[in-house]
Amino acid sequence: MTLPDFKTWAKSIQERVEVTLGEVLPAAGHQPAQLHEAMRYAVLDGGKRVRPLLVFAAGEIVGASPERLQYAACAVEMIHAYSLVHDDMPAMDNDVLRRGKATVHVAYGEATALLVGDALQTAAFDTLSSRVLADNPTDQLRMVNILARASGSFGMCGGQGIDLYGVGKALTLPELEMMHILKTGALIRSSVLLGSFCGAALDEAERSRLDHFAKCMGLAFQVVDDILDCEADSATLGKTAGKDVANNKPTYVSLLGLAEARRHAAMLLADAQDALVPFGARAQRLKEIADFIVERRS
Amino acid sequence: MTLPDFKTWAKSIQERVEVTLGEVLPAAGHQPAQLHEAMRYAVLDGGKRVRPLLVFAAGEIVGASPERLQYAACAVEMIHAYSLVHDDMPAMDNDVLRRGKATVHVAYGEATALLVGDALQTAAFDTLSSRVLADNPTDQLRMVNILARASGSFGMCGGQGIDLYGVGKALTLPELEMMHILKTGALIRSSVLLGSFCGAALDEAERSRLDHFAKCMGLAFQVVDDILDCEADSATLGKTAGKDVANNKPTYVSLLGLAEARRHAAMLLADAQDALVPFGARAQRLKEIADFIVERRS
Repeated sequence: MTLPDFKTWAKSIQERVEVTLGEVLPAAGHQPAQLHEAMRYAVLDGGKRVRPLLVFAAGEIVGASPERLQYAACAVEMIHAYSLVHDDMPAMDNDVLRRGKATVHVAYGEATALLVGDALQTAAFDTLSSRVLADNPTDQLRMVNILARASGSFGMCGGQGIDLYGVGKALTLPELEMMHILKTGALIRSSVLLGSFCGAALDEAERSRLDHFAKCMGLAFQVVDDILDCEADSATLGKTAGKDVANNKPTYVSLLGLAEARRHAAMLLADAQDALVPFGARAQRLKEIADFIVERRS
Repeated sequence: MTLPDFKTWAKSIQERVEVTLGEVLPAAGHQPAQLHEAMRYAVLDGGKRVRPLLVFAAGEIVGASPERLQYAACAVEMIHAYSLVHDDMPAMDNDVLRRGKATVHVAYGEATALLVGDALQTAAFDTLSSRVLADNPTDQLRMVNILARASGSFGMCGGQGIDLYGVGKALTLPELEMMHILKTGALIRSSVLLGSFCGAALDEAERSRLDHFAKCMGLAFQVVDDILDCEADSATLGKTAGKDVANNKPTYVSLLGLAEARRHAAMLLADAQDALVPFGARAQRLKEIADFIVERRS
């Protein structure tokens, strides 16, 4: 049996996740309707769903069922969506365009945007604890903990803080790397780990290799993001382009230059792919998604 | 052996919870230091810790160990603290005073306040999933789910939304009640439930009685809050008094009048105490804290 090509596979996962997100998010008519409508607006019909794709791709390593993976994928995507809603607010990046649409605070007001982000974060932990997603409940508790660590002040929120307090400051490459490991990398990494807990147990060596892959991809994702922000126009990107420079934010491109940033991304990709070799064919999707993350144009 | 009186007991719990909060919150020196310092500012050294007291009091029903209860108590208190930080922000209630101190956005800026709330919510779920808190992991997963449901858009956030969209509108008593059941009641109720999962299992009838107590107390707490907001001055209350009237918010007092609101609180208290009778002496602390909630002056 030949596997469907990556594009076809990715499309099927994206569609599945879209349906599941539609189910786990509160119905738009449920009170308070404005909040629930805005929650759906913030999450549905947008984004490449990179994190869900990683959840499903990692799930292939452990033979996890799509019925479990889809909820783990929704949880991590809701954390991602909440972070975008709050990051876009006037007190943070003050952005008006996201995924080609008006940002939530522009469309629904600041108070609702604040609540939307709060409630989406909660919905992620609700989704991760509402049904059986792992072979044993201890593993599932660990999934909750992985997502919490990745999202909190030692993960995504912490990276956001370093970003915030670093505006206008000259960062060294290790400092920039630390910021991105937290801000973007932690959640990317957790996507892989969450998927890997939905099926058969891995041994220590396997888990450590998978984790190395996940860490490399977390960084590579951000390096490519910086490159795209520098190169692309807003229409292709679906969000305001060039804002890092405009906001005087340190980026891989500002620190390394465009050519070296590209080389850095390629190196991280190679390192990530290396870690997958012992998994053989089971890692096919992870390999493909790694290529996709580094080669994407938006 | 005679039990220490309620005040002595409460003080010992408050101190224990303060120490544990200090441990589970990130150290102030840890990067990003501004965020972590502000998280500690938002949580430590403030409040009556009503929710932690409820966690410990419910724990007495099931003989739960303080070593477990203290973490469940911290989790629910961090959710409460995050909600205060976000509710105080200019986009919501725009309040400058909380627990007798400047609100987080006044002391640290809006961007940090946004992150503080986000990271405190995550820290709650981290705390609830980092160590063994129940006799079996399935119960502990249920604790995660209870806290998520109580906090999200079908709980606290949803109540906040109804509050937000209801400003200036005339609410009926059932509508007001629904708002408060979500906004305040859900988290109060979850405090009791969380404590009750940290020890020996309850049978269905016991769980249902305890839940009835918890629901009554959730409502009673808010009725008393409305009465206090109407009666007290800011110095006693430690936050801006009279702001419900100033903001044209519907309250129990505006809907029922002061005397009837007081009678309503007393009725809820009696109903709550009734539900505890079959638990006998094990419910001593829950009874006392119910009295305390209804009779408090701030």
